[in-house]
Amino acid sequence: MAPVAAVTRWRLLLVLSAAGFGAVGAPKPPNILLLLMDDMGWGDLGVYGEPSRETPNLDRMAAEGMLFPNFYSANPLCSPSRAALLTGRLPIRNGFYTTNGHARNAYTPQEIVGGIPDGEHLLPELLKGAGYASKIVGKWHLGHRPQFHPLKHGFDEWFGSPNCHFGPYDNRARPNIPVYRDWEMVGRYYEEFPINLRTGEANLTQVYLQEALDFMKRQQVAQRPFFLYWAIDATHAPVYASRPFLGTSRRGRYGDAVREIDDSVGKILSLLRDLRITENTFVFFTSDNGAALISAPKQGGSNGPFLCGKQTTFEGGMREPAIAWWPGRIPAGQVSHQLGSIMDLFTTSLALAGLAPPSDRVIDGLDLLPAMLRGQLTDRPIFYYRGNTLMAVTLGQYKAHFWTWTNSWEEYRQGIDFCPGQNVSGVTTHTQEEHTKLPLIFHLGRDPGERYPLSFASTEYLDALRGVTLVVQQHQKTLVPGQPQLNVCNQAVMNWAPPGCEKLGKCLTPPESIPEKCSWPH
Amino acid sequence: MAPVAAVTRWRLLLVLSAAGFGAVGAPKPPNILLLLMDDMGWGDLGVYGEPSRETPNLDRMAAEGMLFPNFYSANPLCSPSRAALLTGRLPIRNGFYTTNGHARNAYTPQEIVGGIPDGEHLLPELLKGAGYASKIVGKWHLGHRPQFHPLKHGFDEWFGSPNCHFGPYDNRARPNIPVYRDWEMVGRYYEEFPINLRTGEANLTQVYLQEALDFMKRQQVAQRPFFLYWAIDATHAPVYASRPFLGTSRRGRYGDAVREIDDSVGKILSLLRDLRITENTFVFFTSDNGAALISAPKQGGSNGPFLCGKQTTFEGGMREPAIAWWPGRIPAGQVSHQLGSIMDLFTTSLALAGLAPPSDRVIDGLDLLPAMLRGQLTDRPIFYYRGNTLMAVTLGQYKAHFWTWTNSWEEYRQGIDFCPGQNVSGVTTHTQEEHTKLPLIFHLGRDPGERYPLSFASTEYLDALRGVTLVVQQHQKTLVPGQPQLNVCNQAVMNWAPPGCEKLGKCLTPPESIPEKCSWPH
Repeated sequence: MAPVAAVTRWRLLLVLSAAGFGAVGAPKPPNILLLLMDDMGWGDLGVYGEPSRETPNLDRMAAEGMLFPNFYSANPLCSPSRAALLTGRLPIRNGFYTTNGHARNAYTPQEIVGGIPDGEHLLPELLKGAGYASKIVGKWHLGHRPQFHPLKHGFDEWFGSPNCHFGPYDNRARPNIPVYRDWEMVGRYYEEFPINLRTGEANLTQVYLQEALDFMKRQQVAQRPFFLYWAIDATHAPVYASRPFLGTSRRGRYGDAVREIDDSVGKILSLLRDLRITENTFVFFTSDNGAALISAPKQGGSNGPFLCGKQTTFEGGMREPAIAWWPGRIPAGQVSHQLGSIMDLFTTSLALAGLAPPSDRVIDGLDLLPAMLRGQLTDRPIFYYRGNTLMAVTLGQYKAHFWTWTNSWEEYRQGIDFCPGQNVSGVTTHTQEEHTKLPLIFHLGRDPGERYPLSFASTEYLDALRGVTLVVQQHQKTLVPGQPQLNVCNQAVMNWAPPGCEKLGKCLTPPESIPEKCSWPH
Repeated sequence: MAPVAAVTRWRLLLVLSAAGFGAVGAPKPPNILLLLMDDMGWGDLGVYGEPSRETPNLDRMAAEGMLFPNFYSANPLCSPSRAALLTGRLPIRNGFYTTNGHARNAYTPQEIVGGIPDGEHLLPELLKGAGYASKIVGKWHLGHRPQFHPLKHGFDEWFGSPNCHFGPYDNRARPNIPVYRDWEMVGRYYEEFPINLRTGEANLTQVYLQEALDFMKRQQVAQRPFFLYWAIDATHAPVYASRPFLGTSRRGRYGDAVREIDDSVGKILSLLRDLRITENTFVFFTSDNGAALISAPKQGGSNGPFLCGKQTTFEGGMREPAIAWWPGRIPAGQVSHQLGSIMDLFTTSLALAGLAPPSDRVIDGLDLLPAMLRGQLTDRPIFYYRGNTLMAVTLGQYKAHFWTWTNSWEEYRQGIDFCPGQNVSGVTTHTQEEHTKLPLIFHLGRDPGERYPLSFASTEYLDALRGVTLVVQQHQKTLVPGQPQLNVCNQAVMNWAPPGCEKLGKCLTPPESIPEKCSWPH
């Protein structure tokens, strides 16, 4: 939580920047609405070329706003990416990584001991300094033990869940995941909040939609600027949709989930119109990582023309659909080739609120307002990590791979395939291949699918390498890794008895506490 | 050429249908403008998700018109596809195929002896019956010997070339390809019509643009309905662009060519606006086959999320970008999931002209006007042939492969790869695999990339197989293959002395005539 001095500094900055904001006619800082999808891929929207074109509302949002085709998550996996969004910092800095193995992806399953460190300043916490009311709807994923609760990290309200909606569990070896309203659980997935794995039916997106609409209406009545973080999970396996959407997509159950989300986004934007606050509400749509091709075709999405998917540091793992929408402020129908990052949503949101980011730490997020409002392009790198290993970097149109790995041969032979139907020799490797001395470099404009490494002997390669090397040296020289949060697991920390379980009679008895090194296979 | 009786019949049909057309207020049949790209892939347009999004004019055309994401060529190769467009008939019917080997692609290189048979009725020939003036600008590709000349098959004007712009040749072993104006050559590629292979500079798209604009203006003055077939070739390797476009794309030289084409399409539509004939001009944009991944990344395009490319009967080989545009008639901003074929442009054009297709033969093209004007969907199969082998069929969302083959191991090991970076086990095969008894079936909605064959044991598979089997049996029962035109090659028939060469002093001496079986390796 931010110390008092910091809060005072934000208040001061707010006063100082209010004049600037007043100059463009905004009476109060704009509302901020971040629509974060779960495992949705770059290629899942009509506007990004999905052949069935079943996202009319998102396509309209893009037509009325600005599309970012070169927008990246901060990690090919959920928890680190979400921690990066809310802190504006790479997972290697904010602690959302593991050192248990080389170049391993890690996240926050129920047995994870770690979570978001108190020392990290989260976006909703900082936005309080500008008077924002903040709510998270949906998946938190930054740790589920009491000290990591979102309401302890700046959110005023929460409706949703701390972990993925995996299950159902037997509540003996593993408890079902709780659903919280604010401080306390109000039920569990597969119990009070059913998901029918056979039919794919679940009402959750509708519930999450109503939570969003209700929150926005209340803040409008209260005349408070709001920050709504709508982190829904219908496109994460097991994918689900409510009955009116089931069977309506040309794309099967995954498509049903996308259609329901698209419809919900339409209703959210429609409410902004009805409330007449579109010109005072900044909306950004994106996803936490690439489509989970391991779950395709029935439960996974599409990364369009890009290589591989979730879990990998190829473009399919980290390039995301992204749309910015702010009628009257962000010009309509534009495309920005700014390299963008999910961490930019932190810095951009602060800028919208008239706040500066914390100055006592490295912030990786960039303020995208110059790109959005004035079409300005800023050079900046995109870093692709697995664990604490820098796998790749993109600078301009060049992407350099320092390490390649999809997963082990052992896993691959068991059918775990992050690149189904794709096989680029020497690139989609099943052994960890080091290229730090002579990185594989791709030109993402000519070759978005990362199929044709540049010739090591070419001038183009040498020029690109020179630029990349400088940026990476600078990055690594100043890097101070945070304390890794995803190393230790313990069955005892699972959601056995979340706050509120007593009232519901749903407390379970945890097993003996045995901390262990988490196993992260890929 | 159409016999007199047939012409009379068209005139009669025109009179009969004129009333119908008059009823919707068109004083004369609409102009027809077919923009046919060469080797452009489904994924090359911004509106189809190309990440660099460099086709603002085509994207606008789509926004003002109707997008067909499920539109197919009639063959994974140029000549057969173009013959199918102009005859409305599958290559197996119109003769544009070979029987020299099993399941072989064939086209019309300089040494080809065959071409479009006189017995085929071509679209421009039939449109004469409704008073249309017709011009082809660009690549003919239906045979280059005198009897195959486009002006002998209904076109009134031609500016362009009979073959691909391969070269330069030494004019000894092989002559440079001629460029014709109407009946006579006016020069040759790499001579009077330079293409700089090193820089990629060529002025040809500009020349072809001017030819198109000039023709449309003249017809407008003459108050004649026109049929313009704009068959340009800048995106076929060697790709080229004029100096103002070179180096302007984020996608390299291929992107430069696309940008120039996009700009040209913008200028063509702009002229229609200036002439105030948009509401009386039907425009359709598509391509002859999938992107030539063999030429990527510098000289080949993108097939988006689809499998493989040109030369294959996977989606990447035959699914095409397609946009219909007719302001005031075709509703704006629509997407049609009608399964469409390049052969439909034949039947649709005749319908626009108030003409019925020939009744003395099988026509494979469908009239798309019900889809375009009223959003009607019609069940119909898409057939995928190589040579006279039916490789696959799509019906609804199901695609059944009866044969799989990309190319031989021998070719593949020499570096000829139609599926770079893609490898679907048992699907992208390098031996000809027969599945006629038990086809591989894919659901193209859930799995547009053809990566997950349905389980043979599933009800879904059995239902799909039943439907597909009926359609294929019906197709094969009534099929009468045309005389194959692409079996015989002869060095003597090359473009040694095209008509007009005397005036230019550019006649070359042909070698001795030695007819041979053409070699079609894949």
